[in-house]
Amino acid sequence: MSLYQVPKLHFCYKWPSLQSANSLLIYDKILERKAQKWIRRFDLRYAVQAGEDLKDLKKFPLHIQSILKILGGSASSKLQIVVLGGGSVGDFGGFVASVLKRGVKLIHVPSTWLAAVDSAHGGKTALNVGVFKNQIGSFYSASEIYMIEEVLKSQPSTRAAESSGEVLKMALIQGGSIWHKVRNLPTLTPEVMWNILPALVKAKYKIVKQDPLEKKGLRYVLNLGHSMGHVYEPLLGLPHGEAVGFGLLFSLQWSFHKGYCSEQEYKSILSAPLFRYFQTHPHYKKCLSLSSKAIEPLLKQDKKKSTHNHLQFVFLKSVGKVFVEPVKIQEILKEHSLQWN
Amino acid sequence: MSLYQVPKLHFCYKWPSLQSANSLLIYDKILERKAQKWIRRFDLRYAVQAGEDLKDLKKFPLHIQSILKILGGSASSKLQIVVLGGGSVGDFGGFVASVLKRGVKLIHVPSTWLAAVDSAHGGKTALNVGVFKNQIGSFYSASEIYMIEEVLKSQPSTRAAESSGEVLKMALIQGGSIWHKVRNLPTLTPEVMWNILPALVKAKYKIVKQDPLEKKGLRYVLNLGHSMGHVYEPLLGLPHGEAVGFGLLFSLQWSFHKGYCSEQEYKSILSAPLFRYFQTHPHYKKCLSLSSKAIEPLLKQDKKKSTHNHLQFVFLKSVGKVFVEPVKIQEILKEHSLQWN
Repeated sequence: MSLYQVPKLHFCYKWPSLQSANSLLIYDKILERKAQKWIRRFDLRYAVQAGEDLKDLKKFPLHIQSILKILGGSASSKLQIVVLGGGSVGDFGGFVASVLKRGVKLIHVPSTWLAAVDSAHGGKTALNVGVFKNQIGSFYSASEIYMIEEVLKSQPSTRAAESSGEVLKMALIQGGSIWHKVRNLPTLTPEVMWNILPALVKAKYKIVKQDPLEKKGLRYVLNLGHSMGHVYEPLLGLPHGEAVGFGLLFSLQWSFHKGYCSEQEYKSILSAPLFRYFQTHPHYKKCLSLSSKAIEPLLKQDKKKSTHNHLQFVFLKSVGKVFVEPVKIQEILKEHSLQWN
Repeated sequence: MSLYQVPKLHFCYKWPSLQSANSLLIYDKILERKAQKWIRRFDLRYAVQAGEDLKDLKKFPLHIQSILKILGGSASSKLQIVVLGGGSVGDFGGFVASVLKRGVKLIHVPSTWLAAVDSAHGGKTALNVGVFKNQIGSFYSASEIYMIEEVLKSQPSTRAAESSGEVLKMALIQGGSIWHKVRNLPTLTPEVMWNILPALVKAKYKIVKQDPLEKKGLRYVLNLGHSMGHVYEPLLGLPHGEAVGFGLLFSLQWSFHKGYCSEQEYKSILSAPLFRYFQTHPHYKKCLSLSSKAIEPLLKQDKKKSTHNHLQFVFLKSVGKVFVEPVKIQEILKEHSLQWN
């Protein structure tokens, strides 16, 4: 219920000093060795296993009980929660911060490229209810977010490439100099990701701050490529950033088919090497060959579903110009089989 | 994260029409007979049993699963939740609305005087974690609140009297014409409660809107009489409004002992018939005779605890003038035994 404030963003080489008597660290236990010295300086700390299981609402009461035990029974409203991890740890830790004592200060330290470029920003927190993802959650902005070069670059270099779907999405939405940089990249290396990260994050906040609670529909454009991305991801077991890349290809082609985007613009976008990677990837054919029967139930679960049979779909007019239109699920299925044939 | 808006307040005689295809009613099952016709007009409805058990975090996942089942698996962001009940049902239903789909529209229909005068207003939602009350929750304002004469007046008339602690508190904080009305009341009947309700509610929002997230400390003044009230309530099994009445007596006397409030003002306040009721009540002696050993652990659990040994205590200078001061828990215990002797 407060005014939206963009978090303080820090791009730094060294680990920041965030330890204090009132700091609780929630962290991905996989980082225990890599960040051992830093982690151990927190007197209050809670290790979690990353993954969808962490976001299971059923397990939430036990997590909270364990956390309150660490805090000595009852939480102080002066508490601040520092979350070190990737997407699922951020979703979980952010939700904890948003509901503990009706909300305590939250600091994100994303440990993956996907979290650093996307999920740590924008204040979305989430838990799953059975098979239904992100049904429980809050809009709760971090006060500060630390992107640490050492942490992010220590990931396997393939992780940077896997985030290219989200990078292309953000560059297409924002356009301008970011797009010009991204369109010429032959591949996404950790070095390149680190260099373009500040501009991509800035572009996301430009949209988020216009519609922090996703009430005006303005924020929906960040869903570009995600309607189908969220279908491909579970059906083919793809990494999120990769699924979004294939989802973008679908959205762009449909935008062209609908006449929203000119042929020239469409071809120019697809000539970007990062898009060529997706177009020639063997998984692309697998995505397109998915049957309507397989796709339909996942589309019906889409969070952006506007009514029973419609969902909000993001189209592209030109680089830097995207818009949302409600479409029938049957239309999506028809277009999908068209793109396959 | 939005701007705070005071909910639309409705004081009405008849049941309002809140039923729609997107409305889920969460209601106290004790009202099933009294409000049968109105309740049954909701296609989507969820009956709960009022009480602290409803606020148990451990049971929250099961409640959410049942609610999602009613909603057909996945919640729509167009959903609105209507909550019909007293304090615990409001705390629970408000929390559900605040985290379902990252927050859906909330409408309160308080069914008790205490909820109508206090807990339905101000956006506080809460769940308990074991013995620790209200450790999980959110600040989430209702869009609309309906105070219905028929519903509120159908309570046993003693319920109106039980809310006199909160009524006195609000009148003392606000001062002016409300205090002049309240100080002359011989007793609180349902008729009187209904008449003074709008002014009391307005006085609460005057404070809440200055500090909706309780970040500036301004909202703390609403805690007048509650530091000790929250001790007396569980130890002697008193109704909340009655415990607050005895808590107010403690706060007023301490304000006088500390020299914050003049003897003349103190005596003038205590001459109000509603206060005389508390002063001459056999429970008052029981409250004062409680030992430090019994009181101390409950004070240490106080949510307004500022540090390990201090808590924020609300003192009164004069009618309409209250202020917050951090005090040592030992000081409170000393004053308490002084008031007994």
